[in-house]
Amino acid sequence: MFNSIAIVGSGALGSYYGARLAQHGGAVHFLMRSDYARVREHGLNIYSHDGDFKLSPEQIHVYDDVAKMPKVDLVIVTLKTTANDQFAKLIPPLLGDKTAILTLQNGLGNDEELATLFGGQRVLGGLAFICTNRTEAGVIHHTDHGFIKLGEYVPGASARAEALADLFRKSKVPSEAMADIRYGRWEKLVWNVPFNGLGTVMDLETDKLLASEAGTNLVRGLMHEIMATAAAIGVPLAADTAEKQIQRTATMGAYVSSMQVDRRQGRPLEHMAIVGHPLETARHAKVATPLLEILHQQLVTIDAANNK
Amino acid sequence: MFNSIAIVGSGALGSYYGARLAQHGGAVHFLMRSDYARVREHGLNIYSHDGDFKLSPEQIHVYDDVAKMPKVDLVIVTLKTTANDQFAKLIPPLLGDKTAILTLQNGLGNDEELATLFGGQRVLGGLAFICTNRTEAGVIHHTDHGFIKLGEYVPGASARAEALADLFRKSKVPSEAMADIRYGRWEKLVWNVPFNGLGTVMDLETDKLLASEAGTNLVRGLMHEIMATAAAIGVPLAADTAEKQIQRTATMGAYVSSMQVDRRQGRPLEHMAIVGHPLETARHAKVATPLLEILHQQLVTIDAANNK
Repeated sequence: MFNSIAIVGSGALGSYYGARLAQHGGAVHFLMRSDYARVREHGLNIYSHDGDFKLSPEQIHVYDDVAKMPKVDLVIVTLKTTANDQFAKLIPPLLGDKTAILTLQNGLGNDEELATLFGGQRVLGGLAFICTNRTEAGVIHHTDHGFIKLGEYVPGASARAEALADLFRKSKVPSEAMADIRYGRWEKLVWNVPFNGLGTVMDLETDKLLASEAGTNLVRGLMHEIMATAAAIGVPLAADTAEKQIQRTATMGAYVSSMQVDRRQGRPLEHMAIVGHPLETARHAKVATPLLEILHQQLVTIDAANNK
Repeated sequence: MFNSIAIVGSGALGSYYGARLAQHGGAVHFLMRSDYARVREHGLNIYSHDGDFKLSPEQIHVYDDVAKMPKVDLVIVTLKTTANDQFAKLIPPLLGDKTAILTLQNGLGNDEELATLFGGQRVLGGLAFICTNRTEAGVIHHTDHGFIKLGEYVPGASARAEALADLFRKSKVPSEAMADIRYGRWEKLVWNVPFNGLGTVMDLETDKLLASEAGTNLVRGLMHEIMATAAAIGVPLAADTAEKQIQRTATMGAYVSSMQVDRRQGRPLEHMAIVGHPLETARHAKVATPLLEILHQQLVTIDAANNK
């Protein structure tokens, strides 16, 4: 069903999952930018807590131009959401009549943008729970987790989603198909909005956000605003979602969120995907989200200062 | 009228003003902690844009214990507001029947605390507009400004306030007595709440806070909340106060606020004086201040994380 696969956005996450699919024997085509020359010559080195492996230049297909790539059965989108304006340029050359598109990007709105451009029937949403980083060109470290939840953009059980989850599992990537991925997405937002958002605004790691009653109340308040927004659009999460996430996070030690790393390194912030689109959803649904409003203003301020 | 003066809190600001008063010929008694031994041996070195000078150990009176100090005509309080719990211990030994107390500390609530402990008739409030820093023990740099506004805690014109402003002026410190110091205090809060408060929470200098519409809107929103609070307690500021301060700050280049420096150096934050007490005032006056509420929660969170 997915004999050929394209990875659009070959950062740490895209390279890791693409390499796993290639290791399993899939024909995986990587669209690369900065790492292109190095990977073309030396292949990919994966250091993974599920087992290290290498892909030689002969084992993978690397491109620096989407026009040189073949049409594929599956496009996996792992771009930073700040590059979503590239969808219309990067994806069309890869699409045949039945090509599916899976986004593993952060936050909200990515599957909608893809559906608007290429039709909702093509699109699957996915959530990657993984810790990866790229230490140099072509060298990827996979340090923890790796689970992928995925499902159709148009909610409902599907053989395609099941087949894709099965392909991931056969490629050493734990995965599960969900009939309605929105539940997973909003549950992840409950965590990401405070810990990625507030953590970035205040430059505090997870443990420091939870080190005081004041910080815990800010985190909890944001979580409840996200849960209220999800409920208002027909995605009611379990009532104890916030408390469970706070408890789990309090025991996991210091964690520097991805957007906080982006801030420290002066890169654009994924503030629209992680906070801005949830805020727009809340406004449409007429849910009062005062904390979310201010958080987004603060993130936009930092993003502008970063790029000054 | 002020023949003997005690400086309680001999950081950069207290040391500078005390040294100016001593240079003018006053009998100034400095209560010191960390710098005591060094200053007792080597005196004070002042590098000032109004003229450098030195005070030899023979020219000043330095103490490491308030019990050894004489009663004085004037106590000038320049402690960090985070040390206000020391008032009851440090100040009583200095008080004669007619001793006046002038606070030059940051933010709101200091004169009230002094009035509660020692009687409102003793207390004068002051605002110091000055850039000073201490580069090593006994070495103070005065890099800009220096103006002191002061006035009675119990509003009204007073010969004492005029005499004190006069003493400062004779000591090369520009100064003005105000019939109601609360106007000066709230006007300063209009600036300090956003630039000190938000600047600390987001670790952004003044120019970066004003580099985007989002940031400027956050600053303006906080300024308007402070102005509304001031008006509600009978201190109406000019309607263009916020816009004037924003314009002036936008032209003055990057400025790192005092609390932001404290955050970076892991010191306690003056969040109660600068944001917490204004917030309490707003709550009492039933003025809605949603931005101030969140700002204070964020500052408390950072202060707790800093001291973790």
